[in-house]
Amino acid sequence: MQGMMRAIAAVALCTIPLAARAEYRVREIGSFHIGGHEVVLEGLPKSQISFTAGMAPITVDPNGQFETGQMYVQYVKLAEPSAPLPILLWHGGGLSGVTWETKPDGKPGWQQFFLEHGYDTYVSDAVERGRASWSRYPEIYTSPPLFRTKREGWDIFRIGPADGWAQEPNARQAFEGTQFPISDYDQFAKQAIPRWATNDAATQAAYDAYVRKVCPCVIVVHSQGGNFGYTAALHNPDLVKALVLVEPSGAPDPAKADASAVKGIPHLVVWGDYLDRVPFWTPLVKANAAWRDAVNKAGGHVEWLELPKAGHHGNTHMLMMDRNSDAVAARVSDWLGQQKLTR
Amino acid sequence: MQGMMRAIAAVALCTIPLAARAEYRVREIGSFHIGGHEVVLEGLPKSQISFTAGMAPITVDPNGQFETGQMYVQYVKLAEPSAPLPILLWHGGGLSGVTWETKPDGKPGWQQFFLEHGYDTYVSDAVERGRASWSRYPEIYTSPPLFRTKREGWDIFRIGPADGWAQEPNARQAFEGTQFPISDYDQFAKQAIPRWATNDAATQAAYDAYVRKVCPCVIVVHSQGGNFGYTAALHNPDLVKALVLVEPSGAPDPAKADASAVKGIPHLVVWGDYLDRVPFWTPLVKANAAWRDAVNKAGGHVEWLELPKAGHHGNTHMLMMDRNSDAVAARVSDWLGQQKLTR
Repeated sequence: MQGMMRAIAAVALCTIPLAARAEYRVREIGSFHIGGHEVVLEGLPKSQISFTAGMAPITVDPNGQFETGQMYVQYVKLAEPSAPLPILLWHGGGLSGVTWETKPDGKPGWQQFFLEHGYDTYVSDAVERGRASWSRYPEIYTSPPLFRTKREGWDIFRIGPADGWAQEPNARQAFEGTQFPISDYDQFAKQAIPRWATNDAATQAAYDAYVRKVCPCVIVVHSQGGNFGYTAALHNPDLVKALVLVEPSGAPDPAKADASAVKGIPHLVVWGDYLDRVPFWTPLVKANAAWRDAVNKAGGHVEWLELPKAGHHGNTHMLMMDRNSDAVAARVSDWLGQQKLTR
Repeated sequence: MQGMMRAIAAVALCTIPLAARAEYRVREIGSFHIGGHEVVLEGLPKSQISFTAGMAPITVDPNGQFETGQMYVQYVKLAEPSAPLPILLWHGGGLSGVTWETKPDGKPGWQQFFLEHGYDTYVSDAVERGRASWSRYPEIYTSPPLFRTKREGWDIFRIGPADGWAQEPNARQAFEGTQFPISDYDQFAKQAIPRWATNDAATQAAYDAYVRKVCPCVIVVHSQGGNFGYTAALHNPDLVKALVLVEPSGAPDPAKADASAVKGIPHLVVWGDYLDRVPFWTPLVKANAAWRDAVNKAGGHVEWLELPKAGHHGNTHMLMMDRNSDAVAARVSDWLGQQKLTR
């Protein structure tokens, strides 16, 4: 109860100016890799590699033992967290944990917000991304990686209409009223990480191991993380105490998964603006609504927060990077404060 | 002067037990990408990719605009740093900034050490590694990546003799007296990141931009970071106030670089044990000694710390992960305290 009161009180802080943001006492900043296993490569040909231009090449033997399938987790543990549970922040496709850190415009993101609001925070890089590392293909991963173009991000992240895209940054026309700092769109593009279409099972296994290691907890997922988060809750219903889904790009199929298994977990699904302007999103929202209805029909608690209807206009798919990211985080923090979370 | 006294006093703390380690007040945890530029791919064929097994493939167009050549930097700024300058920790080849975080045995590493000793800390992932991301080859990067086997790491990181390697973890025979926690060697292998032999110029450019953004500073480099650190000092002699080289794998050629340019920067070069057991290291140590002699002859200050001669036995190339990592960090912290560092 005290934790709840603190969380609710903390929400009031979110509109104070940047210079006055809170300091916090830290007990430990650390990290670990979790999940994965050894794989052995044999019979591949040796190759000649020159490490420096003009230098004689050396022979490289690609055969041997490697680790694959692990993910990376970084945590900040507060000396005296006021929130009763740690918060785990899971990124979306083609990105890494950087999603939650400082925004492309240089202002503090959601990791900093939740630290200032008394949460131990965990930020991870899923299998194949960032500090999790990646593995040789096609010998270990079975397919080639995909690299997202700036134009594709502009479209599916709902920064602007397809015909608003231009190669020149200054010529781009975003959706009217967008909260995304479009002059920093190319800075955001530096965060893009290659992805594979064939690593979902390994990624889920690592996420499940991660949940078993650090939870009970609150999990906040974004985009592609939606499916991983919903499934982690199905696999570990006693460890996930609340699930916040920020623009989840997928959801379990009610015909295949048992919605009643997660009826004890409060869910909050958060949607930004312009969903009717980008057809890509229509089936994804529909899949989430179907899972929402199935969980609620089974006696669960899935809340549906459409930000424009709640007075927050102009949010993109990357709403944790939008100019009003603190206001949206405060909505999430407020909702978490309303849940009966116990350690 | 007050900063120096604090730094020296802080050294005395390093032998206190883990449970009593200091908390610290944090002003901000954040990150940014720096360096790099846009590249445009054109004329590549489209491909068909199935994102989910059994689903109809979708057409992927790999052509468009991408960012390449950027690096990733994460910082922890203390509310009241007692050290007069921030410390920048640069990793070695085939690894990422994780090198400086929690050790493979789960105990705190050098990032945590320097935070507890009052330094603002910056931990980065160089171009092509970790959260810096990487680019398509051969269209953007000109060569294929290299994946280090566990056996190669065992050898060049001087964990044990070549004939001490075994596929089975329990059968491996490390050097006698090693400080490396060999039962965690496979956990360490999860930190391995693919590398390229052809990105040195882009990497140096990003490091130089990073130095210009956040320094004056102290820089601590490891292994492959040696060349990048030495060169960053040559390029920015007024911004690098001290340079600590932990087992640097290369050094500038005194016949090609002007050693007098860095005579005002105190250098500390730190070497572990078993250097005479692994022939790979002989020419690398020699190259560093030549640069040391050239800088000192030009009136500079390069100190050479061979840990076994200073009473620290059993250190590997990964000495920031060895069991006595705090004792070695204290040596570095002590040396930094002796330098006349001003903001």
